[in-house]
Amino acid sequence: MAQTRDQALKDRAAKVIPGGMYGHLSMQLMAPNTPQYFERAKGGYVWDYDGNRYIDFMCGFGPNLLGYGHEEIDAAFVEQLKQIDAAVGPSAHMIELAEAYVDQITHADWAMFCKNGSDATTISLLTARAHRGRKKILLAAGAYHGASTWNTPLPAGTVPEDRANFIYYEYNNPDSLRAAADEAGEDLAGIFATPFKHEVFQEQLLPNPEYARAARQICDTKDAILVVDDVRAGFRLERDCSWRSLGVQPDLSSWGKSLANGHAISAVMGNERAREAAKQIFVTGSFWFAAAPMAAALKTLEIIQTSEYLERSIKLGERLRDGLASLADTAGVPLTQTGPAQMPLIMVTNDQGERDHFASQNFCAGLLQHGVYFHPYHNMFITAALSDADIDHTLDAAHSVLRTLPAQVAA
Amino acid sequence: MAQTRDQALKDRAAKVIPGGMYGHLSMQLMAPNTPQYFERAKGGYVWDYDGNRYIDFMCGFGPNLLGYGHEEIDAAFVEQLKQIDAAVGPSAHMIELAEAYVDQITHADWAMFCKNGSDATTISLLTARAHRGRKKILLAAGAYHGASTWNTPLPAGTVPEDRANFIYYEYNNPDSLRAAADEAGEDLAGIFATPFKHEVFQEQLLPNPEYARAARQICDTKDAILVVDDVRAGFRLERDCSWRSLGVQPDLSSWGKSLANGHAISAVMGNERAREAAKQIFVTGSFWFAAAPMAAALKTLEIIQTSEYLERSIKLGERLRDGLASLADTAGVPLTQTGPAQMPLIMVTNDQGERDHFASQNFCAGLLQHGVYFHPYHNMFITAALSDADIDHTLDAAHSVLRTLPAQVAA
Repeated sequence: MAQTRDQALKDRAAKVIPGGMYGHLSMQLMAPNTPQYFERAKGGYVWDYDGNRYIDFMCGFGPNLLGYGHEEIDAAFVEQLKQIDAAVGPSAHMIELAEAYVDQITHADWAMFCKNGSDATTISLLTARAHRGRKKILLAAGAYHGASTWNTPLPAGTVPEDRANFIYYEYNNPDSLRAAADEAGEDLAGIFATPFKHEVFQEQLLPNPEYARAARQICDTKDAILVVDDVRAGFRLERDCSWRSLGVQPDLSSWGKSLANGHAISAVMGNERAREAAKQIFVTGSFWFAAAPMAAALKTLEIIQTSEYLERSIKLGERLRDGLASLADTAGVPLTQTGPAQMPLIMVTNDQGERDHFASQNFCAGLLQHGVYFHPYHNMFITAALSDADIDHTLDAAHSVLRTLPAQVAA
Repeated sequence: MAQTRDQALKDRAAKVIPGGMYGHLSMQLMAPNTPQYFERAKGGYVWDYDGNRYIDFMCGFGPNLLGYGHEEIDAAFVEQLKQIDAAVGPSAHMIELAEAYVDQITHADWAMFCKNGSDATTISLLTARAHRGRKKILLAAGAYHGASTWNTPLPAGTVPEDRANFIYYEYNNPDSLRAAADEAGEDLAGIFATPFKHEVFQEQLLPNPEYARAARQICDTKDAILVVDDVRAGFRLERDCSWRSLGVQPDLSSWGKSLANGHAISAVMGNERAREAAKQIFVTGSFWFAAAPMAAALKTLEIIQTSEYLERSIKLGERLRDGLASLADTAGVPLTQTGPAQMPLIMVTNDQGERDHFASQNFCAGLLQHGVYFHPYHNMFITAALSDADIDHTLDAAHSVLRTLPAQVAA
C-alpha cells in the first residue's frame, strides 16, 4: 500500500514538533488509521489530506457548535477584521458581548474575556481565592479544568506546590464534598464543578441534584465561591449556564470552545458577589481584547437565541444513541453510551462492563473506513449542522463494523 | 463640554466588566483623556469612537509589527479560514510553520504553538523542569513573563506556593545570577531572561554580554535550561532570537505578539537538548492548532525575510529619539529615553532623574490632543508602517507639548 499523505505529514512533523504532535488533538492513543492532519472542514464534515471525507462527531473537541466554516459567523469575523482586531484597546464589541451574556446567562452580572479554556478556569481560580483571601479549592478527583500547571493531567514539569491547596472530592457525592469542605475549614476559597462528569476513559455521569445543591449550600454558608466549569459543555446543554435545569446558580462560570463557533475566545461570567474579587486580580493576554472573535461571538449568540440548534443536536444525538444501542444489541457487542445524547461517550466494553481499549479503537478504526470520525475514549460532540442522512450513514457504517467486533471483544 | 462617546462606552463597560476594563490595555493609570475603546485601526493609525485619529506608538502592545489590517497577511488568514481553522486536527500549516521557524531561528530544532505569551512562557517553565526533574527556576527580579499565577505582577488570588520554587536575581548582574544558581544547587532547572530589561515604570537596560554568557555557562555546567523570553521583543531586534547578536543561544525561546502581525498565535522554539522534556509535558488549548493564524504567521515570516521592515523601524525610532532629545533639551524638560530605538521607553523625570508620573502622563495627554498615542510608563513599539511624515508630525506635536511642561516638572 502506498504511503498516505497523512503519514508523510506525520513523518515531517516528527522532525520539527516534539513527539510529532502534542495536546488533546494528538491521535497517538487513537486507532492507527486515524488521520492527524486535515485539509478542509465544512458544516459537519472534515477532509483529510488523502481526499477522505468524514462525518465529524468531535467538532474540533467542542468549538464547532453550528457547523465548520459557518457563513454568517465567519462573515461577521471578517468584516470586523477589516475595521479593527487586536489593537491598543478593545472595540465596543467587548461591551456589547458582555451585555449580551449578562442578559442571556441567569447568574451573570458581568463577563471577562480571554483565549483558552484554561485562562477562564484560572481566572475563576484567582477570583475565588481573592474573594476572601483564602487558599483551598475543592476539585472533583480526576476532573479536567484545562492544562494549566495546577490541573494538567500529566505530572511532567509540574511541582507538588502547584497543587498544594487543592482538596479532591468524589463527583456527585455530597458526603465526599462536605468532608472536603470540612477539611478546608476556614480556608475554603471555592468549589469547582464540571456541569456533568465528563472525564476521558470513564463513563460519563449526569449531575446529582443533591450534590449540586450541597455545593451551593456550602459556598453560601462559608462565603466561598461556586464555579461551574462550562468550557466543554457551554451552550450544548442549555442556552444558559448548564446547571440552570438543576436550579443551582454558580457565582462564576468558565466558558470557551463553542462561544464563537471556533474563533478563539473564552470567558468568565460572574455575579455581583464575585465582582470585587475579579477587579483585584491581574490577568491579561496579548490577544484577549481582539474585536473580530467578539463580533463572531455576538453572531453565534444571536443564532443560539433564534435557532433550534440545541433541540436539533439533541434529536440527532438521541437518534444516534437509539440506533447504536439496537445495532450493538443485535450484534452482541457490549456498547456503553453515557452522558447527554448530544455529548456522548461511546465505549466498547468487555463482559464485565469494563472499557476495552482495543475494541473501542477497532470500532473507531472501522468507522473511519466508512467516513465516520468517532473518538474511542473522549466524549464526542454533535453539531446541529449534521443531517438525518448523516446519522443514517453513521448507523449503516456501525452496522457493518459491529458485525466484525464480537470476536475481538470475546478474545 | 459634551460627553465623549468614549466616556459613554466606559460608563456602559463599568456595569458589565469588573472595574470597567482589566489587563494591560486598561488605561486606568494613563492620562485621563486617553481613549479606552477604538473603532478602527489601519497601518500605523488607530481611531477612537469620537473620530480622532492617532499615530499609534504602542502597536497594540506589540502585535502590530507591519501595520494594522495588513492586506497580504489578512488575506492569507481569510483564505485559510475558508478551508479549515480550528478542527479535529491541525492542517499542514502547523508543520510548514515549524519548519520555517527551524530554518529561521538559529537555536531552534523544533517548535510548539499556543495562543498567549503566557502559554509560551509556561511551556518553557514546564519543559525546563521536566528536563532533569528539577524544581528551581531563576528569574530576574521584577521581570514580566506573562500573567500566569506564577508570574502575575499583582498578588491578589495567588498563593505563596505559586512562587515557592523561584529564585530572583538582578538583571544584567552576573554575580547575582551566579549566587542565585548556587542557592538552587543541584535543583536548578533553568534560567529565564528577557532579551533586554523592559519592565514598566523603570529605565530599560540593554543586556550585558557578560551576564548573557554567564547564564549560558551556568546552564551548560549544571545541565539546566536557558530560556530567552522573546514574547515582547521577538522579530523587533533581530530576524532571529534576540540574543543572536550577543552570540548566546538559549535552549528555549518563547514567542508571541508579533508572530502573525496581530492574529492570535504564540510559540516556543527549542533545541535538541530540550526536545525530550518537551515531549513529556502535557499542554494544550482549544484553539492552539487553528490553521488560519498559522497561515498568517507564514505570510508574516515571509515579509520579515524579504522586506526592510526591521531596518525601517530602527531608522524611524532613531529619528524620533534624536528629535525628542533635541526638543527636550531646548525646552529644558528632562526626558529619559531608554531601550532599543524601535522599542523606546520615554519618561519625563525630575531634577534627580526620577520618573515623574504626572509629568509623564501630561506629556502623553498633550500628545493625544495632537493625534499622537504615546505610553507614559510602558515601552512603546514602532511599526514599519509609519512614515517619515508621521515622525515629523510627532516631533511637531512634542515641540508644542514640551514647551508647556517645564513649569509642571519644576512644580
